Amino acid sequence: MSPTVESIDPRTGKVVEVVAHEFSPDEVDATCEVAASVAPLLDEAGPRGRARMLRLMADELDSDGDKIVELADRESALGTTRLRGELARSSFQLRMFAAVLDDGAYLNVTIDHADPDAAPAPRPDLRRMLVPLGPVAVFGASNFPLAFSVPGGDVASALASGCPVVVKAHPAHPATAQRCAEALRRAAVGAGLPLEVLGLVHGGAAGADLVRHPAIRAVGFTGSLLGGRALFDLACARPEPIPFFGELGSLNPVVVTAAAAAERADAIAADLLASFTNGVGQFCTKPGIVFLPAGGQGRRVRDSLATGTREYQPTAMLAERIRAGYWAGADVRAQLPGVDVLAESAVPEGTGFLAPARLLGVPAHELRDEAVRATLFDECFGPLTVLVEYADEAELLATVAQLPGSLTASVHAGADETPTVIVDLLRQRAGRLVWNGYPTGVAVAWATQHGGPYPSSTDSRSTSVGAAAIERWLRPIAYQSTPARMLPDALQESNPWRLPRRVDGAQQRP
Amino acid sequence: MSPTVESIDPRTGKVVEVVAHEFSPDEVDATCEVAASVAPLLDEAGPRGRARMLRLMADELDSDGDKIVELADRESALGTTRLRGELARSSFQLRMFAAVLDDGAYLNVTIDHADPDAAPAPRPDLRRMLVPLGPVAVFGASNFPLAFSVPGGDVASALASGCPVVVKAHPAHPATAQRCAEALRRAAVGAGLPLEVLGLVHGGAAGADLVRHPAIRAVGFTGSLLGGRALFDLACARPEPIPFFGELGSLNPVVVTAAAAAERADAIAADLLASFTNGVGQFCTKPGIVFLPAGGQGRRVRDSLATGTREYQPTAMLAERIRAGYWAGADVRAQLPGVDVLAESAVPEGTGFLAPARLLGVPAHELRDEAVRATLFDECFGPLTVLVEYADEAELLATVAQLPGSLTASVHAGADETPTVIVDLLRQRAGRLVWNGYPTGVAVAWATQHGGPYPSSTDSRSTSVGAAAIERWLRPIAYQSTPARMLPDALQESNPWRLPRRVDGAQQRP
Repeated sequence: MSPTVESIDPRTGKVVEVVAHEFSPDEVDATCEVAASVAPLLDEAGPRGRARMLRLMADELDSDGDKIVELADRESALGTTRLRGELARSSFQLRMFAAVLDDGAYLNVTIDHADPDAAPAPRPDLRRMLVPLGPVAVFGASNFPLAFSVPGGDVASALASGCPVVVKAHPAHPATAQRCAEALRRAAVGAGLPLEVLGLVHGGAAGADLVRHPAIRAVGFTGSLLGGRALFDLACARPEPIPFFGELGSLNPVVVTAAAAAERADAIAADLLASFTNGVGQFCTKPGIVFLPAGGQGRRVRDSLATGTREYQPTAMLAERIRAGYWAGADVRAQLPGVDVLAESAVPEGTGFLAPARLLGVPAHELRDEAVRATLFDECFGPLTVLVEYADEAELLATVAQLPGSLTASVHAGADETPTVIVDLLRQRAGRLVWNGYPTGVAVAWATQHGGPYPSSTDSRSTSVGAAAIERWLRPIAYQSTPARMLPDALQESNPWRLPRRVDGAQQRP
Repeated sequence: MSPTVESIDPRTGKVVEVVAHEFSPDEVDATCEVAASVAPLLDEAGPRGRARMLRLMADELDSDGDKIVELADRESALGTTRLRGELARSSFQLRMFAAVLDDGAYLNVTIDHADPDAAPAPRPDLRRMLVPLGPVAVFGASNFPLAFSVPGGDVASALASGCPVVVKAHPAHPATAQRCAEALRRAAVGAGLPLEVLGLVHGGAAGADLVRHPAIRAVGFTGSLLGGRALFDLACARPEPIPFFGELGSLNPVVVTAAAAAERADAIAADLLASFTNGVGQFCTKPGIVFLPAGGQGRRVRDSLATGTREYQPTAMLAERIRAGYWAGADVRAQLPGVDVLAESAVPEGTGFLAPARLLGVPAHELRDEAVRATLFDECFGPLTVLVEYADEAELLATVAQLPGSLTASVHAGADETPTVIVDLLRQRAGRLVWNGYPTGVAVAWATQHGGPYPSSTDSRSTSVGAAAIERWLRPIAYQSTPARMLPDALQESNPWRLPRRVDGAQQRP
């Protein structure tokens, strides 16, 4: 008998219910095969059919919102206010991808008419568009039981593209995963599509089986560097390698210039505290390292952050394993040479997976040591940040130039400052550059970029949030000299879907 | 002393000159570091500066065309007519990427203005565009000493994107590589850029060193499955994995329906013969497998192809290693159970790397055997194709459904035929679908797709030819709440470069 999958309440540490069992290799295989078998139906539904499905999915999520939020809160301890927001974000995201489908530009329709006089050689009629890759595996994230899990951006964008999805539920919120999957499947059926466009599997081994399964054509992953890299390696080692879009961990550096500290030390300290402790520090965009000028108003930012950290009131972390990882990581960092524990909140008592916030400080020159740097430049998931105090700009630049890739990089500068060099260094190491702001909070929009150089993404060319997230699941196909009766609707000369397209080199809007 | 790199004449098999030496690890390192050091200059030149450079590169190639074609012919034996065409294609391609830069849509500029009332949460100002990845390694192909080598599409698209390139010269044409690199470097200097935007290394070990080098941010490769997969594996196994765009081998299936055979058996046979022997069969798009109806007019196609094959006059293959691989592959296939050698051209005499054309035939049911299928579904580089005779449509579909990924798939149908099922099966296995035509010959255009499911590409989401080839070398970055003084020109509200862009969800043309 395979092990059971239990739903645990992080506030008590107790098992509330048995939700499912871990999937056997045969069950994973069956789930993938059925996903492959419905792929043509999802493709044939076209952008309009899928837009209808996504909007129904958003409606179903909203209708079942009370119960979903209640379950998600019981399994994550993130609080109903945050989770209501996450639910709204998830249904908004589904509707946004419906709008992306209505818009149609994502298909990238490009037509070159035959030209016997073309240089350097006569050219046949060529018509290119993007088509879905096929079934996609998605690994739900621990820290977003909704917006980066079953009803999240990876699933929404993959379904929008026409790819069936098999989700590997995160063990921290299996009941929420089940309930959300049921809502989305009701919507699929409501839109005249099979419920199997969305599969759900449980269990760590099932995740690896999924990545190796021949029917799976791409993977979306949000999670840890260790687990994500192992799955990435599996995806690359397949007989037919597949794209693996993983978000593995991000330091999200924040640079505060001397001028910024002089202008608004207290405001920066207050907002940074809120940002690094938000959701118990369990954000992929948590600011994990902050560069402050040593002395002067930098000290005021530091002291004010220390006071705030001591007053922090913790809530439970998502899972026992996550809290254990946080404690271990916080202790390893505190013991590094040159690192001071500037502040720590009260060690919480009582049941549940509670954890203190911790503020560390280190002079920038200590990071010249490779071992110190390697540890401090590694993400520590939880309510901890490291203040790196730099003596001068040269030291700041030298240290920043060694930062690994991150999802974001933030700069706090003075009102008239133009810190070009530091911005240049940071933008080479991040996917989103935040000016005088904080990295937590990711807008779902057309211009969103949520992905950056490794290890923040396994493929920095992609985003997992925003309209462009759909591009990950599509590949181009060109039809050469093909008569109208054999062309898909999107490539017909008459443009029945009224798509924006490029014809003979010129962009056209319908 | 490192081994020398020799230029060999395939028509005589003799060494003509020593061109260079194989690069040591230190020399590869120095080449990559200097490429990284000039990356900011190439980026800062902007689309206009790089368009100017690409046009100068095309001019320099054209000016030196006589000497380049002479060298390329001496090293490849492909003939000056073909090589003049390849040169024209290469300079056209450089100019086309200049046009892509002028157009500017490739930057994907997307702006969402701040919106405090946005659902589901207030939104900051977000501005997203694509930026170059950094230095790119390109592996020149054996079979296109120009258009897929130093002055080829990978190099042109990478330089266009703003990425410096280090080319690993193919050992079959090192002198051509050197001469072309000199022409392109003269143009770079003419455009006010450092000649180091294009590096060139020689030697197999140097290729592996290149893929592993931390400064290299992506790889373009055209070559064999074995060599390409080994390099792909290296790229994935790096501490920071990088995108690897490899074209590793393609079967390029052709399906001839009974109606097509009945309508135009002789024409199909003549054109297929020309396609599979073109360039001594040394094309990535060579039709390597042809599905013919057994009996009836299918037999006429077969017999006519056999006659043509016997009359084929061979020229030299590119290199001794390539001819040896062809002979070995042709023999392994001929000895498979059920496979007949339908025709073979005269075994050529004389010096040089000559090789006969070979036409194989096999009944489709023999491909039920996994070992037979595995061998016949593997590319055999050279003037050989396999006729698979199918008894009925069911047998055709069952066999086609097991084909691996290819760059292309071609269908020959009757004038009124609508073979939807076969086209559906083929388009799942190819990047370009050719109707009543032949796969050799790839137009360089906006709608070009030259890439398909594995193993024809390591990433089916990409193309190595055509305007979209530039997408491989770019990653997105978003600027959040950033004042005009810190924004790049492409993201300025006033749109000084007059770029097409998406603003608040709506596509705009300047």
